Amino acid sequence: MMQYPSKLVEEAVEAFAQLPGVGRKTALRYVLHLLRQDEATVKKFGNVFSRLREELKYCKTCFNISDHETCSICSTTKRDHGIVCVVEDVRDVMAIENTHQYIGVYHVLGGIISPMDGIGPNDLQIDSLVQRVAAGNVHEIIMALSTTMEGDTTNFFIYKKLKEFNIPVSTIARGISIGDELEYADEITLGRSIVNRIPYEKTFSSRGN
Amino acid sequence: MMQYPSKLVEEAVEAFAQLPGVGRKTALRYVLHLLRQDEATVKKFGNVFSRLREELKYCKTCFNISDHETCSICSTTKRDHGIVCVVEDVRDVMAIENTHQYIGVYHVLGGIISPMDGIGPNDLQIDSLVQRVAAGNVHEIIMALSTTMEGDTTNFFIYKKLKEFNIPVSTIARGISIGDELEYADEITLGRSIVNRIPYEKTFSSRGN
Repeated sequence: MMQYPSKLVEEAVEAFAQLPGVGRKTALRYVLHLLRQDEATVKKFGNVFSRLREELKYCKTCFNISDHETCSICSTTKRDHGIVCVVEDVRDVMAIENTHQYIGVYHVLGGIISPMDGIGPNDLQIDSLVQRVAAGNVHEIIMALSTTMEGDTTNFFIYKKLKEFNIPVSTIARGISIGDELEYADEITLGRSIVNRIPYEKTFSSRGN
Repeated sequence: MMQYPSKLVEEAVEAFAQLPGVGRKTALRYVLHLLRQDEATVKKFGNVFSRLREELKYCKTCFNISDHETCSICSTTKRDHGIVCVVEDVRDVMAIENTHQYIGVYHVLGGIISPMDGIGPNDLQIDSLVQRVAAGNVHEIIMALSTTMEGDTTNFFIYKKLKEFNIPVSTIARGISIGDELEYADEITLGRSIVNRIPYEKTFSSRGN
C-alpha cells in the first residue's frame, strides 16, 4: 500500500480509483494533472460533480437523462412518437441520434438483464415500457440492445411481455457483429441496421432455434 | 460532435475529458458510472475536488505536496536532513519511500526542464534547491530524475548550479533502463539504484562523452 503525502490527495486518488478501469497510479496522474491547473478550473471540476447527481433528471416518458421533466426528443412534435426504440442507456441514444436515420422516440431501460451482476427485470424500465405500450399510442417497437447474451435475454423477455399487444417488435439488423458493444459501432453500420431492421421472430431461425 | 441529452452531463464529460489520456467516450463512461452511485457518493466525489486545489499545501522546505506547512518527512528527526534527493514530482517521492531504503529528505522540482513543453529552469524549484544548499546544512545531493533526455538535461543544469558548493552530487544507479519512467520501476530495482548511487561525474564516461 502506497503512502500518500497528503490525506486530501489520498481522498482524491480514491475518488478517481472508483471509476471503471482506473487504478491508483492512473488516479494519481489525474490528481497531479488537476493540481497543475489554476484554482478556478479545479473548483469548477468539483462543482460539476457536486451538482451532477442532484440536479440531473430522467425523462418521465423515456427515462433518458435530461435537464427537464421531459427530454427534448419526447417533447418535440417532429418525431414519430408511435415508434419506440428500446435501448440500454443514454450512450446508445446518442449513438443512434448521431446516425440521423431514426425518426421515432426511445425507451431507455437503464441496463440489461444480467443475473451475473444481479440485475433482474425489476431493476430496469421494463414495466414502464409495457405501460407505455398498453396506453395505446405505440405502433412499433424496435429493440436496439447490444448483441450479447444479456442483450438477447432482455430482448426475449420484453418480446414475451409485449406479445399480447399485437404490435410489431423488431430488432435492429445484425449488421453489427455478434458480441460487439453498440456504442462502438460505426455510424454507417449502425444507421443501416436501423433502416434494415427485421421482425423479432425472424431472429430465431437465423440462429438455429 | 456528439449531442448530449443534458447540459450537465456534457459539462461532466468535458470535465473528465480534460484529464490526460481520457477521451469523450471514456469520460461519458465515467459519468454514467457516477450516475449509478447514490447521491452521497457523487456529492463526496465532487467535494474532494472542490477542496483539492484550495486546501492543499506544498512543504516550504522540499515543495512536496503536504497537508501542512512542513511535510511529514521534513519535520521528522528520524531522517538525515543533510542528504537531499532531488525528484520530479510527488509520485517519485512515493516510489522511493516505498522502497524503505532511503533515510534522507527530498527536494521536489515540480517537473523537469523540457523546452518542448515550454518548461524552463525558472518554472521549477531549482533556485530554492540552490538556496537550501547555500544555507549550509546539506552535505550530499542525490539526483533521482527519470533517465530521459529531459532528465539528463535537468541533472546537468543542477549539477552546474551546485558545483561551487563542493558537495558530492550523485545520480541513482542506472539500474533503471534508459528511457523508463521512474514511477513504474519495481521496488527492488529502484531501492538498489539508490543504495548503489554513483558520483555524477562518472555518468559522463559511461555514456561516452
